[in-house]
Amino acid sequence: MAEAAFSRVAILGTGLVGGSFALALRKHFPETRIVGWDRAQVLERAKSLAAIDEAAASPAAAVRDAELVYLALPVVRAIDLLPEIARHAAPQALVTDTAGTKVAIVRAAEAHLRPPVLFLGGHPVAGKELAGIEHAAAELFQGARYALVRREADGEDERVGRFVRLLGALGAEAVWCDAETHDWAMAIVSHLPQLIATALAGVVLDETDETGMPLSLAGPAVQEMTRLAASPYDTWRDICLTNTENIARSLDRMAQALEQLRRTLRSRDLEKEFAAGNELYRLLRQPR
Amino acid sequence: MAEAAFSRVAILGTGLVGGSFALALRKHFPETRIVGWDRAQVLERAKSLAAIDEAAASPAAAVRDAELVYLALPVVRAIDLLPEIARHAAPQALVTDTAGTKVAIVRAAEAHLRPPVLFLGGHPVAGKELAGIEHAAAELFQGARYALVRREADGEDERVGRFVRLLGALGAEAVWCDAETHDWAMAIVSHLPQLIATALAGVVLDETDETGMPLSLAGPAVQEMTRLAASPYDTWRDICLTNTENIARSLDRMAQALEQLRRTLRSRDLEKEFAAGNELYRLLRQPR
Repeated sequence: MAEAAFSRVAILGTGLVGGSFALALRKHFPETRIVGWDRAQVLERAKSLAAIDEAAASPAAAVRDAELVYLALPVVRAIDLLPEIARHAAPQALVTDTAGTKVAIVRAAEAHLRPPVLFLGGHPVAGKELAGIEHAAAELFQGARYALVRREADGEDERVGRFVRLLGALGAEAVWCDAETHDWAMAIVSHLPQLIATALAGVVLDETDETGMPLSLAGPAVQEMTRLAASPYDTWRDICLTNTENIARSLDRMAQALEQLRRTLRSRDLEKEFAAGNELYRLLRQPR
Repeated sequence: MAEAAFSRVAILGTGLVGGSFALALRKHFPETRIVGWDRAQVLERAKSLAAIDEAAASPAAAVRDAELVYLALPVVRAIDLLPEIARHAAPQALVTDTAGTKVAIVRAAEAHLRPPVLFLGGHPVAGKELAGIEHAAAELFQGARYALVRREADGEDERVGRFVRLLGALGAEAVWCDAETHDWAMAIVSHLPQLIATALAGVVLDETDETGMPLSLAGPAVQEMTRLAASPYDTWRDICLTNTENIARSLDRMAQALEQLRRTLRSRDLEKEFAAGNELYRLLRQPR
């Protein structure tokens, strides 16, 4: 059991990600005092699962005296809370978030949070399609990459080192990048796959007729390729709002790739497309 | 242990699907004599795995005296073998196939196979992205739907009943449809997901630069959404050649759906798209 990196942690948003962070903290750092804030019903569930020690009545009450403030909310909601956090956070607090886009929240944090309070943008590249504390698990971060936004201004703040060690204890691998690179990269490897799953699900639903076809011939392929379609709208609304240009560009690239495939359906060039697909499959499964 | 439905079975193509059929027969009907035909190296592997009893030197030698001829090859290859099968099959043979498209092979079978030899178009909606006998498993058909093409001309041939009972013993559920409906439906729930995975893999590969981004931030979502990209070219070349129009249409529908999403990135209408995606997710997971 490692020594607790942060003695008091406030988790704002105790759904899938915040709840899993709470359960993982509980498992690896049982000494840590965890205060949660969310809707009353969610908080009650988090308490009954022993994910949190205290349910706070407001973000202000949650962050008071916390050494670590962990914002696990849809990104626009998280941004909206920054002024309140700025007013009530302890001077030595490290504030970090989990949102799927980083440019908007890093910019907002610069505008609202003043030293010595420190903001570190974060994004666990992990998750499940089903949201909510009922799907939270201490193992969510195990083996996952965890993007962290490096800013020159931070220098070598020891709180950042402590947080990275904490992530390591939870089984996550920190990957440093700047906010712009993060948002561009995630548009391709996360936001595009999500929107493809949503679009494909829409096509299959639209095409299904009163006979039940083609759904009644659905096999594992379409089930897998639409699993992400169960993802919650509120999270993705915020991601689409805060990464619109990168996402639009990735959708354009995808439309081009589909058009290219359409042109090669009866041509030898189709082999090149499959060769590229085979190669990416291998790359994604190489030992790191 | 059920009584063997067919005492002698010829499997032409002992890769993933043919090899799995052999292993499943072996498990559920150990009395059945199984003759295989494929490339020498594949046959050797099939024999060493005890999937087949005999390795035949030619399709003609394999089908001789077989009560059931199981064609598990890419569809154009299977069609090319029909004249040879017609010349050598036993009069009472049931010939069936496993190809992902049905119109072309049913038409070719009508042209080549003459009564009393009977052709039954089949397609197990199961599989893995990795081809070859080394990935074959007796459980491949367990819980899978197995499309069968009903033709009025067949009447109530008892061989068909025997084959359906065999499939049931292997854990598969027969779904009857006509060839045109099958190919239209599969273009949407199988061929489109495959080509989307291939296209997405191509986009991710193209976008990856010398820094390793965005691949180094790849998480479970993109890994899952490109798993099918490992599928073998030769199978899909034949599917694209024999279902071109349906596939082109499904690609068009997908392009429209992506364009629609692109337009709603900053609009409340995005919620409708996610609601449809959530609904399809539920439909695909309803108990049958």
